Amino acid sequence: MRPNIETFIGCDSSYEDADIVLFGAPFDSTTSFRPGARFGSAAIRHESFGLETYSPYQQKDLCDCSVFDSGDLELCFGNAESALADIENRARQILRGKKLPLLVGGEHLVTLGAVRAALQSYPDLHVIHFDAHADLREDYLGARLSHACVMRRVWELLEGEACVPSKNNAVEPLETGTAGPRIHQFCIRSGDRAEFIFAKQHTDLHLFSFDGLEALTAELAQTRTPVYLTIDLDCLDPSAFPGTGTPEAGGVSFLQLLAAIRLVSQTNVVAADVNELAPMLDASGVSTATACKVLRELLLALAPERSEKARAEF
Amino acid sequence: MRPNIETFIGCDSSYEDADIVLFGAPFDSTTSFRPGARFGSAAIRHESFGLETYSPYQQKDLCDCSVFDSGDLELCFGNAESALADIENRARQILRGKKLPLLVGGEHLVTLGAVRAALQSYPDLHVIHFDAHADLREDYLGARLSHACVMRRVWELLEGEACVPSKNNAVEPLETGTAGPRIHQFCIRSGDRAEFIFAKQHTDLHLFSFDGLEALTAELAQTRTPVYLTIDLDCLDPSAFPGTGTPEAGGVSFLQLLAAIRLVSQTNVVAADVNELAPMLDASGVSTATACKVLRELLLALAPERSEKARAEF
Amino acid sequence: MRPNIETFIGCDSSYEDADIVLFGAPFDSTTSFRPGARFGSAAIRHESFGLETYSPYQQKDLCDCSVFDSGDLELCFGNAESALADIENRARQILRGKKLPLLVGGEHLVTLGAVRAALQSYPDLHVIHFDAHADLREDYLGARLSHACVMRRVWELLEGEACVPSKNNAVEPLETGTAGPRIHQFCIRSGDRAEFIFAKQHTDLHLFSFDGLEALTAELAQTRTPVYLTIDLDCLDPSAFPGTGTPEAGGVSFLQLLAAIRLVSQTNVVAADVNELAPMLDASGVSTATACKVLRELLLALAPERSEKARAEF
Amino acid sequence: MRPNIETFIGCDSSYEDADIVLFGAPFDSTTSFRPGARFGSAAIRHESFGLETYSPYQQKDLCDCSVFDSGDLELCFGNAESALADIENRARQILRGKKLPLLVGGEHLVTLGAVRAALQSYPDLHVIHFDAHADLREDYLGARLSHACVMRRVWELLEGEACVPSKNNAVEPLETGTAGPRIHQFCIRSGDRAEFIFAKQHTDLHLFSFDGLEALTAELAQTRTPVYLTIDLDCLDPSAFPGTGTPEAGGVSFLQLLAAIRLVSQTNVVAADVNELAPMLDASGVSTATACKVLRELLLALAPERSEKARAEF
Amino acid sequence: MRPNIETFIGCDSSYEDADIVLFGAPFDSTTSFRPGARFGSAAIRHESFGLETYSPYQQKDLCDCSVFDSGDLELCFGNAESALADIENRARQILRGKKLPLLVGGEHLVTLGAVRAALQSYPDLHVIHFDAHADLREDYLGARLSHACVMRRVWELLEGEACVPSKNNAVEPLETGTAGPRIHQFCIRSGDRAEFIFAKQHTDLHLFSFDGLEALTAELAQTRTPVYLTIDLDCLDPSAFPGTGTPEAGGVSFLQLLAAIRLVSQTNVVAADVNELAPMLDASGVSTATACKVLRELLLALAPERSEKARAEF
Amino acid sequence: MRPNIETFIGCDSSYEDADIVLFGAPFDSTTSFRPGARFGSAAIRHESFGLETYSPYQQKDLCDCSVFDSGDLELCFGNAESALADIENRARQILRGKKLPLLVGGEHLVTLGAVRAALQSYPDLHVIHFDAHADLREDYLGARLSHACVMRRVWELLEGEACVPSKNNAVEPLETGTAGPRIHQFCIRSGDRAEFIFAKQHTDLHLFSFDGLEALTAELAQTRTPVYLTIDLDCLDPSAFPGTGTPEAGGVSFLQLLAAIRLVSQTNVVAADVNELAPMLDASGVSTATACKVLRELLLALAPERSEKARAEF
Repeated sequence: MRPNIETFIGCDSSYEDADIVLFGAPFDSTTSFRPGARFGSAAIRHESFGLETYSPYQQKDLCDCSVFDSGDLELCFGNAESALADIENRARQILRGKKLPLLVGGEHLVTLGAVRAALQSYPDLHVIHFDAHADLREDYLGARLSHACVMRRVWELLEGEACVPSKNNAVEPLETGTAGPRIHQFCIRSGDRAEFIFAKQHTDLHLFSFDGLEALTAELAQTRTPVYLTIDLDCLDPSAFPGTGTPEAGGVSFLQLLAAIRLVSQTNVVAADVNELAPMLDASGVSTATACKVLRELLLALAPERSEKARAEF
Repeated sequence: MRPNIETFIGCDSSYEDADIVLFGAPFDSTTSFRPGARFGSAAIRHESFGLETYSPYQQKDLCDCSVFDSGDLELCFGNAESALADIENRARQILRGKKLPLLVGGEHLVTLGAVRAALQSYPDLHVIHFDAHADLREDYLGARLSHACVMRRVWELLEGEACVPSKNNAVEPLETGTAGPRIHQFCIRSGDRAEFIFAKQHTDLHLFSFDGLEALTAELAQTRTPVYLTIDLDCLDPSAFPGTGTPEAGGVSFLQLLAAIRLVSQTNVVAADVNELAPMLDASGVSTATACKVLRELLLALAPERSEKARAEF
Repeated sequence: MRPNIETFIGCDSSYEDADIVLFGAPFDSTTSFRPGARFGSAAIRHESFGLETYSPYQQKDLCDCSVFDSGDLELCFGNAESALADIENRARQILRGKKLPLLVGGEHLVTLGAVRAALQSYPDLHVIHFDAHADLREDYLGARLSHACVMRRVWELLEGEACVPSKNNAVEPLETGTAGPRIHQFCIRSGDRAEFIFAKQHTDLHLFSFDGLEALTAELAQTRTPVYLTIDLDCLDPSAFPGTGTPEAGGVSFLQLLAAIRLVSQTNVVAADVNELAPMLDASGVSTATACKVLRELLLALAPERSEKARAEF
Repeated sequence: MRPNIETFIGCDSSYEDADIVLFGAPFDSTTSFRPGARFGSAAIRHESFGLETYSPYQQKDLCDCSVFDSGDLELCFGNAESALADIENRARQILRGKKLPLLVGGEHLVTLGAVRAALQSYPDLHVIHFDAHADLREDYLGARLSHACVMRRVWELLEGEACVPSKNNAVEPLETGTAGPRIHQFCIRSGDRAEFIFAKQHTDLHLFSFDGLEALTAELAQTRTPVYLTIDLDCLDPSAFPGTGTPEAGGVSFLQLLAAIRLVSQTNVVAADVNELAPMLDASGVSTATACKVLRELLLALAPERSEKARAEF
Repeated sequence: MRPNIETFIGCDSSYEDADIVLFGAPFDSTTSFRPGARFGSAAIRHESFGLETYSPYQQKDLCDCSVFDSGDLELCFGNAESALADIENRARQILRGKKLPLLVGGEHLVTLGAVRAALQSYPDLHVIHFDAHADLREDYLGARLSHACVMRRVWELLEGEACVPSKNNAVEPLETGTAGPRIHQFCIRSGDRAEFIFAKQHTDLHLFSFDGLEALTAELAQTRTPVYLTIDLDCLDPSAFPGTGTPEAGGVSFLQLLAAIRLVSQTNVVAADVNELAPMLDASGVSTATACKVLRELLLALAPERSEKARAEF
Repeated sequence: MRPNIETFIGCDSSYEDADIVLFGAPFDSTTSFRPGARFGSAAIRHESFGLETYSPYQQKDLCDCSVFDSGDLELCFGNAESALADIENRARQILRGKKLPLLVGGEHLVTLGAVRAALQSYPDLHVIHFDAHADLREDYLGARLSHACVMRRVWELLEGEACVPSKNNAVEPLETGTAGPRIHQFCIRSGDRAEFIFAKQHTDLHLFSFDGLEALTAELAQTRTPVYLTIDLDCLDPSAFPGTGTPEAGGVSFLQLLAAIRLVSQTNVVAADVNELAPMLDASGVSTATACKVLRELLLALAPERSEKARAEF
C-alpha cells in the first residue's frame, strides 16, 4: 500500500525524466485587498481531477508529456524576503537540472523569487507579463516587497541596479544600453498615474489587450531570447475568472489567453508562472477549473515533443 | 381553496390541450465530479416566477402556448437502469398522446431514457447535441451507464446494435448504410483522445462552436427528419453558466445558444431536453435564471402557433 | 483624532468646492424578486478602497476632480412615497447649490425621486435609461410605486399629467407636442407584452444594445438639452454583473457600458444615478468591484476639468 | 397526468377534511436589516421532503393528521396594509371553517393580520410570543406597520383602542380592566430601553428563556382561554438558527423550543404562526431544515387525535 | 525532490509499522437528499493541516502514534455493489495485516463494506452506531443498498441470514440465540415509524443521546467482545456540524461525542469509520475542522501506546 | 451637508469627552491558516447598525456612555514590526489622554502592540487572555512575530527580558520574583505539547473553560492590579462563532463569555482588545453580529457611569 500522492493531473513523470517541474508557492502575506491566493496552488492540484489530460485545442495529451509535480513549498507567513529566498532556491535547483520551473502562486510577489533564479542562468532574460495591473509601484504603504510592486522590483533586477526614485515618484529615464525594454506587459488596465508614467519610460506596456504580442514573439523567437512568462490570472475578465483578489472589469477571454500562450510558446521560454487564483473567493468553482485548464494548456504548449513516447501510445 | 400547485411560469395548459409536456428527472447518481444536478428541474420551476412570459427575441408569449408541466418523476438514487426506465415510460406516454416531451434534467444520462422512447416512435431519428463534452466514452470507471458515456449509448441505440470495442478502445468503423452519422455534436471542447477518435469515425462532431449548424438544419428541415434536441447547458461559457458539475472554459454565449435553438426549431423536433443545471453550485443564482430563460425560449421556439388563442388576446 | 469617515475613494472635496455630490438611497422595499439592493450604496463606498483613482481609459484621476460624498440617506422601509420625498429633497438641495447630484441606489424606484427634483430645475429634461427591463408597467401586483413601474411614472411626470390607462392596459397615444419621446431606453430585453406596446407608442426604446445611442447623444449635445442619466446595472450581462435582483442573460459588456457613458457625457448631463447592485447576491464580490469601476468612470466622465488643480499636481 | 403539486410533507388532506390549514405569507418589505424572509414559506415547503413525517419526540406521525397546505398568498410588496388585509382575509376564512389557521411567514409583521382575524372570532384571545426581540416600538423610522412594532400593534388591538404615546415615548399605564396583560413574551433579549419600560407596564415579558411558561400554560389551560401562538424563529440561538434577518446571540435551543411548544399545545390554541426564516442567509441549509422540524412538531402538537384514522394504519 | 504526498496530519508511519490504517471511500451515489459526502475524506485530509497533532483532552500526540494514510479508493459512481466490494477488499487486507482499518466516508452506506470484512475476522462482532438516523429501512425508493438502509443490511449480516419482511414492513422477531442485539444505536432522533418498531424488536436503540453507553461499554470491555464503531457525524447537533446531507436538530455536542469515543475505546475496537461530512454544504469550514478533530481524537483513543517511541521524544 | 461618518453604533462622543477610544487594526499577514481577520474591525463597525444600543443583560445603554471611534489604522501588509509600532503609538496616545484604548483586530498578533503601550503606563500590568489557542510558540515556521506566538512575546515583555529557549524548545523556569504568573489564560483547548509544558511553568493556564476566573478577578480587584483583557473570539464554540481563521470545537457559549467579561470588568481594566473575526468566513453573518454584541457588552461593562448624563435621559 502506498501513501496518498496528489499531483496535478497527468504529471506523473519522475523528477529525473521530467522536462518541466511544477512547484507551488502558497504565499499571500502582502495581498492588500482580498487575501486567499495562498490556497491557489493546492486548489489547482486538487481540482485538476475534474479535467481531461487531452486538449482538443492543441491536440496534445499531458500523458505524452514529462512533468513532475514537486508539491508546495512550506513558506513563512509574514516574512516576504524569507519566502522569496525559498522560491529562488527551488527554481535554481530545477534550472540547474536543465528543466523548466513552472511556479504556481500564491500572490504575484512570488514571481520575483523565480525571476532571480532565471536571471542567474539567463542574463539576457526578457519577461512577458500578462496582468490587469501594472504592478510598478515604488512601494505600497511603505513596503517595497509587495504584490503591487513586483514588476518594479523585476525591472530593477533586469537593469542591474537599484533604482533611486526622484521626487514625486517620477523616475528619471535610465540609459538602458542599445536595446529597448526587457519587460513586456499586456492586458494592463489598472494602476496609479505614476505607474503608467514609469511604464512609458521603462517598459513595453500594452493597454487592455494582447495587441502587439504577435510581433513581439516573432522577434523574440527569431533571436532565441530566453523568456520568462508570468501570468497573473486576473488578466482574464472577472466574468471568466472572479476568484481573485483584485478583479478588474474589462479583461480578456479564456480563448484570447489561450492564443496568447501559444504565441509565447514559440519563443525560448525558460521559466514561467501562473498566479493569483484565490479559491476562497471562487464560490462557483469556475475560476479554479479555468486555472486548471490554463495550466494544462501552458504545460502542453511548453512541453517538448517526446516523439518516441507519443508514438508508443498509438 | 386549492392545494399549492407549482409549475414553470406560463405552463398552465391542461394535459389534454397541451402541445408540449414538461417533466423533470431529478437524477445525478453517476455524476463523477460535482453532484447536484438532481435539483435542477425543481430550481428551474421555482425560480421561473422571476421571468417574464413574453420574449422580445421571438416576440411570442408563453401565455399564448399550450404547455403542461407534469412535475418531477420520483427516481431511485443509485440505480441508473431503473431511473432510465421510468424516464422512458413517461416520454413514451407523452409521445403516444401526440405531444412533444420536454425533459428537464438532472444529469445528462437522463437523455438516454427519452431517446429510447423517441426512437420507438421515430426510427429515423437524428440527435442534435449541444455540449462542452463529447460524452462518448465506452465506460467511466467501469460504469457504462454514466453521464460521460451517454452519447456513446445513444449511438449504439441509433445504430441498432451494441458496439463491441476493439483493443485500445478504438472502435472499427461500422457500415451505417448509405446515410452519414445521425448524431450531430456542437460546441464540444472536452473529452479524452479516444472520444475524439471515435467521433471522427462515427459522429458529426463540431468543435468549440455552432459552426455548421445552419447547413445541417437546412438539410434536416428539407427532409422533415425527426430530430431529438439535447442541450447540456454546460455548452455555455462558465462565465454565463457557472452552476454546473463540470464547467469548461471557452464556451458559447447565451445569444449564440438562442440563435442555435431557433435554427433547430425550424426542423421537425419531436422531443427535447435541457440538463446539467446544478443549483447548489450556483451561488449567484444567475445560472438558474439563465436556464429558465433558455427553457422559455425553447418552449416558444417549439410550440405550435395557436392563432385563435393569440388572436383573442388582442 | 478624527472620527471614522468613509467615502467613495477619491471623493474628498468639501461640499462647497464640489462639482458633483454623491448620495446613497438604501431602499428596496418594492423589489419583487430577490431583495438586497438596499446594501448597494454602502458596499460600493466600502469596496472602493480596492480601486485606483486613476483611469487608463479616460486618462483622468479622481484626485483631480471635486466630488463630495454625503453618505446614505436614512429611509423608511415599507413606505415608498416617504422614501421618494426624502430623495427628492436631497437632490433638490444639491441642484440648487449648482452641483450635479449623483444618486446611488438602492432599487430602481429611487430614480423617481431624483427625476422629480431635476424636472423642477430643468423643465425640458430628457431621460436616458440603460436597463435590461423596460420598467413601464402601469402597476405591479397593485402597487404603482414599484421598481417595475418606475419609467412609467417618469413618463407621466415628463408628460405633465397622470396617464389614465384604457382597458387592457393599452394606453392611447397622447399628443406630446411637436417633439418626440423624452425617454430614451437602451439594452432593454425584458418586459411583458404590454410594456413593449406602450414603448412603441411613447418612448424611444432600443432593444438589446446601445445601437442608436451615438446619433441620439450627438443630437442632444447639439441642442444642449438637459439630460438625466439613469443606469440600472442589470443592463450588463449577468456574467459580468451577477449581483443584482433580476439578472437577465443577453446583456452588454463592461466595455460597451463604458463607451456608452462617455457618449452620454458629451451631452448636458444635469443629474444621474446608478442602481440595483445587490451585494448579498454577489458571492464573488465581482459585481461590487464592477459597480465601483462604473461609478469611477461615470464621475470622471461627468466631472468638469479643473485645470488649475490638475496642473498643480504635475 | 396531474400538474405539479407541492405541499409541506404529509399535509395531503383535502381542505374539507382538514383540522389545520397552512398558508404562507411571503412578505418582508418592512424588514429593516437583512431582508429575505419572503422566501421562508416556500423554502420550508420545498425542503420538507428531507424530513420524516414521524416524530420520535411525540411518537406521532403527520400521516395520521389532517392538514391542508393552501400554498402562498400573492402579496403586494411595498404596501404593508394591503398585505395585512389579504392575510386577515385568509385567516378569517379558515377560522370560519372551524379550522386552525397556521400562518408561515415572511417577516413578523404578518402576525398582525392573523391576530386581527383571530380576535374577531375569540374576543378574549391571549397571545403567546416567542422571540429574541420585544417588537414593541411605537414606530420604526416613522413607520408604524413594521416588524419592529408588531407586538405594539397587537397590544393596541387587544386593548381595543389606539394608544397615544406621551412625550419621550413613555406610555402611560392604561386601565386594562381587572385582568393582567394578554401578551406573554418569552426569550426576549433585544430592544431599546423604551420597549422594556413599555413591557414592564403592559405585557408579561420574560427575559432570555422560557422561565414562567409552565405556570402560564397551566393557568390558561384551566380557563380554556383561546390562545394565539406566534413563534419568531430567532428566539432560537443563532448557532441553531443562523438564517434569519436579525440573529441575536444568547437564545434557546431547539429542544427547549420543542418543550415549550408542547406546553403551549396543552392550552386552547386557536391560531398560530411561524416566521422569520430567511433562506438567502442560510448558506448551510440548517436553518431551513430546523424550521421544517419546528413546523412538523407544531403541527403534531396541535393536530387533534384522529383515532379511527390512526387505528386503520396498524 | 519527492512528489507531493498529502496525508492526514501526523499520520506519517510506514504501512509496515502502522497500528492503524486510514482509507477514504469517496462515494455518495445513494444519498437521497443533499449529495457531496464523496468529498468528505479528501477535505478531512486537506484541512487537517490546520490542526495540532497534540490533544489536551487525552494528553496524547499523533506524532507518538503509528498511523498510515493510504489515501482514497477510486470508486465507481452509480454502482453501489461494486463500490462496497472495493471497500471490503481494502478493509480485509488491513485486517489480515493485523492492523485496525479506519474508514473515512463518503455516505454511510460505505460502512457495509467494512463490516463485511470485519465480520469475517471477528464472527462475534458487535456494532456501536452513533447517528441521528436509525438507517433501518428495508428499502428506500426501491433500493436496498442505500444510506437509509445500511444498518438494516448490517443487521442481516450479523444475524447470518437475509430477513424477509412480512406485510406492512413489520418484521417478525427472530430467534437470535441467547444473546441480545448486536447492534447498539445512540443519538437516534429520526426515522419512519416502521424503523422504530423494527428497532424495538431487533436492535439496542437509544433515543436522542448517549444514555446507556457507559453500561454497555463496561460490559463489552469485560467480555473483550470485538467492536466495530461507526460514527455518522450527523449525530452532532447541526449547530456544531452543519455540513452534512441530512442535518437533524436536537443532536449531541462535540464534547459529548468526545466522551463517548473515549468510552468506546475502552472496549476491543477492531475497526471503525467516520462518515457523512459533505464539504460543499460547509460554507464556514467549521464542520470540516470539527470532523478533523473527531478523527484525531478517535485515532488517539484507538492507537496503542508506543512507549519507547513516546519516551524517546522527551 | 456633512461627509459620511461611520462609527460603531452609539459611539458618538467627541474624543475629548470620551472615556474609551475604539480603534481598529486591520492586519492579518501572519495568519497561517485561513486569512481575513483584516476585515474584522470594519465589519463590526458596519454591521453594528443592526444592533440595539441598550443591553437587557446589563440594563445599560451605549447612548449613556462616552465612547469615541477613531476608525481603522492604515497598516502595512507584510511587515509585522511596522504594524505593531503603529498600533503601539495609537494605544500610547490614548493612554496618555487618560482614556481606555479598546483595540479591535485583526489577527491576534495586534495585541502585542497594545500591550507594549499599556506596560509603559502600568509596569505591574497583568494580562487576562480568553482564547482557544495557547499562542505560546517560540516561533512559527521561523517567524517570531506570528499570531501563534503572541502570548509568548507578551510573556517576554512582562518578564522584562527576552527568553532564550534551551534545546528541544523547553524553557528553563525563570525566577519571576515573589509573585506568580502575570498571564492568565482561559478556555485554552489547542496547542502543541511544548506550549502546554511552557504554560505549566510560566503562565496561569486554565483548560477548556472559565473555571478559576471568579477567584482570580476577586483577587485582582482587591489589589487594584491594572489588567489588560485580550479576547480572541475563537474562545467561543464554532457553533456560535464560525467566522474565524482557526475554529476549534469545544468552546464556551456566548452567555458564558458575557459572564466572564462582567467578572473581569470588576477589576481595574486599563486596556482591552477583541480580535480574530474573519468576515469572509462568516457566510451567515452570525459571527459578525455576535462580535458586535460582545463589543457592546464589553463597552458597557468597562465604561464608567456617567450619572448626570443618564439622569438627564429620564
